[in-house]
Parts: sequence; structure tokens; C-alpha cells
Amino acid sequence: MASRREVAELAGVSEATVSRVLNGVGPVREETRQRVLEAARKLNYQIHALAASFARGRSGNLGVVLPHVPKVRLFSTYYFSEMLDGIGEAVRERGMGLLLLYRRPQEPFDYVPLFGSVRIDACIVLGASSLPEEEAGIRAMADEGLPFCMIDHRSGDGRASSVCAAHEEGSRRAVQHLIESGYRKIGFLNGSPWYSPSREREAGYMRALREAGLAPDPKRMFAGNYSRTSGRRAAEDVYARLRDLDAIFVANDRMAIGLMQALRERGVRVPDDLAIVGCDDSDAAAMVDPPLTSVRVPFGAMGRTAAERLLDRLPDWRGTESVFHETLATELVVRESSAPRS
Amino acid sequence: MASRREVAELAGVSEATVSRVLNGVGPVREETRQRVLEAARKLNYQIHALAASFARGRSGNLGVVLPHVPKVRLFSTYYFSEMLDGIGEAVRERGMGLLLLYRRPQEPFDYVPLFGSVRIDACIVLGASSLPEEEAGIRAMADEGLPFCMIDHRSGDGRASSVCAAHEEGSRRAVQHLIESGYRKIGFLNGSPWYSPSREREAGYMRALREAGLAPDPKRMFAGNYSRTSGRRAAEDVYARLRDLDAIFVANDRMAIGLMQALRERGVRVPDDLAIVGCDDSDAAAMVDPPLTSVRVPFGAMGRTAAERLLDRLPDWRGTESVFHETLATELVVRESSAPRS
Repeated sequence: MASRREVAELAGVSEATVSRVLNGVGPVREETRQRVLEAARKLNYQIHALAASFARGRSGNLGVVLPHVPKVRLFSTYYFSEMLDGIGEAVRERGMGLLLLYRRPQEPFDYVPLFGSVRIDACIVLGASSLPEEEAGIRAMADEGLPFCMIDHRSGDGRASSVCAAHEEGSRRAVQHLIESGYRKIGFLNGSPWYSPSREREAGYMRALREAGLAPDPKRMFAGNYSRTSGRRAAEDVYARLRDLDAIFVANDRMAIGLMQALRERGVRVPDDLAIVGCDDSDAAAMVDPPLTSVRVPFGAMGRTAAERLLDRLPDWRGTESVFHETLATELVVRESSAPRS
Repeated sequence: MASRREVAELAGVSEATVSRVLNGVGPVREETRQRVLEAARKLNYQIHALAASFARGRSGNLGVVLPHVPKVRLFSTYYFSEMLDGIGEAVRERGMGLLLLYRRPQEPFDYVPLFGSVRIDACIVLGASSLPEEEAGIRAMADEGLPFCMIDHRSGDGRASSVCAAHEEGSRRAVQHLIESGYRKIGFLNGSPWYSPSREREAGYMRALREAGLAPDPKRMFAGNYSRTSGRRAAEDVYARLRDLDAIFVANDRMAIGLMQALRERGVRVPDDLAIVGCDDSDAAAMVDPPLTSVRVPFGAMGRTAAERLLDRLPDWRGTESVFHETLATELVVRESSAPRS
């Protein structure tokens, strides 16, 4: 491991300047800052400097990186507001700040400098996907051994800590419930496969069919993007294949509610003509008519768990050795939208 | 990552001009500013610019101070989630971060050091009240001439910028609507008078009665604390005085919904036995049964306006001279809970 003096020599500056740059304190000319960062990178000095700044100067902020979802008000969305409330509780109890940062669409997000300039001590990533440009940002953080965690998404990189929900088991249980309620021609409306929960829900759907000796049918698989509008759009395809369906499992409540509304406009009765089960158990699930059966996902507890694990481990974070993975249980909440087949 | 020179070349300006624009210092023609921002966006220069602003003594963060409300999940509350979404839009467009900080109950909040330690460049205060320990924190910021703004609360200190809603006019309109619909014995369930909107709503209620030649009656005034539970609790008093009431105006939807639910459990029919009008026009207002007439408050636009005014003035903030006050219009949304008296 290189020393601070070696970084200073390579950059042609004083050791004090190296400290100022790497700890993000005091005024430094941008060109100088770049030269120091370049030298530190070349000498692989980064981790050492970060460890030092963690020991000494902390920002007192937990960073939370949010996706940019066009036309969606994130805080007004059950999924994000619940996770943020859980994270916020843990942050508040520790007297820290919560720094929200926004990813831009179709752009790699450069997380590492956020730590280097001591804007954040640790980082939680929400709404991440497996898209290559997103994975690259995650890998860069893991390369540096930085303290971060993803919620509700499993990265391909095992060095990325995660707090997830048992979506496969929850989905299996939801489809099993439909089968026990007398339904046999069970469709599946999923969200984008770039999100790991989508892949897990599909696995659970498949497993439930297999366990009941039912053959999956590609004609009963539908695709949305987790928005209510995409649920409404899917209604056209679902309606066209209604003879082949008596129930449908939907990967989140927003799509399920959009689908239900659009089907009702076409005269389809739920559950008489088509039973529907959603995922998330959002506030809206109990409010719609008929009330929606849904897989409850403990987003608030997931947010709190992620923040607590990160912040509790922070004082002696040891890079990859400190990585953690947790999976919280889901639970099926049965309502009228999946009443037993008459 | 693009360099400053590349941005300068694409925009056809000098590097010094790029610095002036991205750091928000010095005079720049608006057309030039737009060209530089356009070039920076195209070249994904953002984080680099943030790092530069940090090096200069800017954090690149807008601070938002939240109250600690026991047992309330703030992000899941319409009032806060809407304002935060509005603030978030403005922050995101500027490539900045949003630093959430939590006030502790019964403790003065020391805002000033947040600026000094370069954690934030400007500050928005949500959910503030006129309690002396809160006013002290606000006064300290004003004494320093720091760039900050309160949303939906007018401080006694005129040097505190504010973005508010026309609650008095909205409340006047709501009560006038009840009078026009045939109601005469109109009660009022208010929240805590420590919040300026409560005082303005009471003034609007009084004005509408006066304009219609109706005498206010202290027996028709009820007190809650803006929670749904306090609305449920108020139902007991309201029920006891039901002979003296044919309608009630409630200072927010949460209390109105709690009141409506608890009254229904006692067999009271809305609006036949008692008409109800709420405030906020939250998502829930349209979902309850009967749908709730409510005064729409543009919380999202208020959040966006506060953040834009602050951040746009930031480059040449001149203390008290730069203070601003805006009041956004409210609008009555009529639904079944206040149907004309039969």
C-alpha cells in the first residue's frame, strides 16, 4: 500500500494538499485536485485514504441513490416511500443526515467520488437494475471495498451487500393460493426482467405450477414495466386471451390495479371472470373495489435493516469481509379479488 | 468523464466562463449560461462540477429539515411526500443532492453549523411551528443572512423566506360552499394553532360566517392535532353536539377521514346527518366513501417553487435583501360529502 508521501510526490504537491483533497476539506484548485486523485488511483491509495477519513472525519450522512423514473413522483410511491421511511428511522435515531442523490436515466452513476469527497459515509442504492451501466457503478464501489447496500435487488456482483425479500416464495404461495381456490388457467403479468425481483417472481410462479402438475403456457405470460399504465395496456392482451385464463398473478399492485380498472371498463368481472393477485400489499390494495389479494413485502423493515446493518458495521468496515445479505419474509394477504371459484 | 476544456469547446466559450457558469459566480449572459449548461449536460460533466463546487466551499446539497412526528411515517404522508417530490424535481434538474435532516422533539434545532461545515448550501424547513424553541433556530439563520425558506408556515420573523398557500381564502371558500349548499350550523375542527395555516384557516372560517351574517359559536369549535387519531377522538365531542351541527369544516383530510369513520360507527350518515369538508385534497379524499369535498393545496408546486427560488438566487444571495415570500392559490374540489342539503 502506497503512503501519503508517495501520492504527494507523484502529484507534485505537499502531503497537506493530499489530505485536503482526499478528505474533502479546505479549498483546493480543481486541477490540483484532479492530479492528486489521479496519483492516488495509480498508487491504489484510495482505500487507505478512505479508511483514514472514516476514522477521522465523517460526513455524518448516509447517501441514498434514487432512480430517475419519468413522470413518477418517487416519494408518493408506496414502494419508495416505505423504504425511505425505514431508512429514515435508523438515520434519525443516530442523529445523522440522509443525502438523496438522483441517478440520471441511461447514464452510469459515479458513486465513488461521493465517498472520496466525504459527502457520505455509506450508501444505499434503491431501484437499481441489472443494466450494464448500472452494474458498472456498483462494481466500482465494490472494487473500492466501500460500505454500501442495495435494497430489493441482487447484483450479479456478490460483493454488493443486499437486503431483499423472499419474492420467489411469496409468488409461489400466491399462485398456490389461486390453485387451492379452484383456478387452473393462471396467467402471469411480470415487470422488467432487469430487476432481480421480477426474475424471482417468475421462478415462484413456475414452481407453484410445477408442484401442482400444471404446465406453464407462454400464451399466459404478459409483460409490463411496473407502472399502472403498463397494467392498463396489458389489459388488451389479457382480454384477447380471456378464454385461456381464469386467474392472473401480477408482479406489483400498481399494474394489478391498472389491469383491473381497464378490464372492468370492458365488462370483465373480478374475480368471477378473472381472479387477480398482486404484489406489495400497498395501501391502495385494500382500497380498490374489489379489494386486492396481494403478497405483502416488508419494504419499511427492509429499509431499516439495510441502514442499521451498514451504520452499525461502519466503525470497523473491512471491505468485502463486511458484506452482508439478508432476505426478509413475505406474506400473502387474501382479499376478495381471489375469492374461491364458484 | 469530460473535462472542463471539452465543455468550453462544445459551448464555444472560454474555460473561465465554464467555471463561472458551473460555480454560479460572476456575471454571465443568460444565453451563454444556457449554452454552457447544455454542453455540460451533453458531456455528462455533472459530478465533476459538483466536485468542483465542493472544492470551492459548496456542498452541492440542498438541506431539508423535517420534523419528528411520533409514529408518523413522513414519506408515506401526503403532505410531506408531495412537498419532497416538488423539491426533489428542482434539485435533480440541477444535479444536486437533497440532504434530509431530522429535528428532534422538544429540542432547538441548530441550523447554522450545517452551512458552516459545508454540508448544505441552502436550507428548506418543513413542518415548522411557532413554538419558541423552533423560532429561535429560524431567527439564528436569519441573523446570519443564510439562504433558507420555510414551506407552509409563516414565521414571526419576516426575514425568513416562505412559500405558503392561500389557506384563509381556501377555507373561506369551503365554508361559503357549505352555506350555499343549505347548511347553517357549521362547525370547525382545527389543528394546532402553533402552525400558521391553522390560524389562517380559522380566519377564513370566521370570515365566511361573517359574510353570510352567521354568528360564530364557540360550542361548534373543536380541536385536533392533524392526525387521523385526533379526528377519531374529536368524533366524541362532535357526536355529543350533533343537534347543534349540520356541517363541519375540518383543517385537513386525515382528521376529516378519522372523524367520518368514527361517526359512521355511531350510525351518523354523511352528508345526510352531517356534511364534511376537509383540506389538502390528498389521494385518500377521492377514495373514501362518501368521497370527501376538500380544499386542494398545491404542495408539490410549493416544494418546487421554494427550491427553485432558493437555488436560483443562491449565486448572489444577499442576505435579508434576497428574502422572498410567495403564496400559491388553493382550489375547492367538491365531492359527495357536502352534497346540497335535502
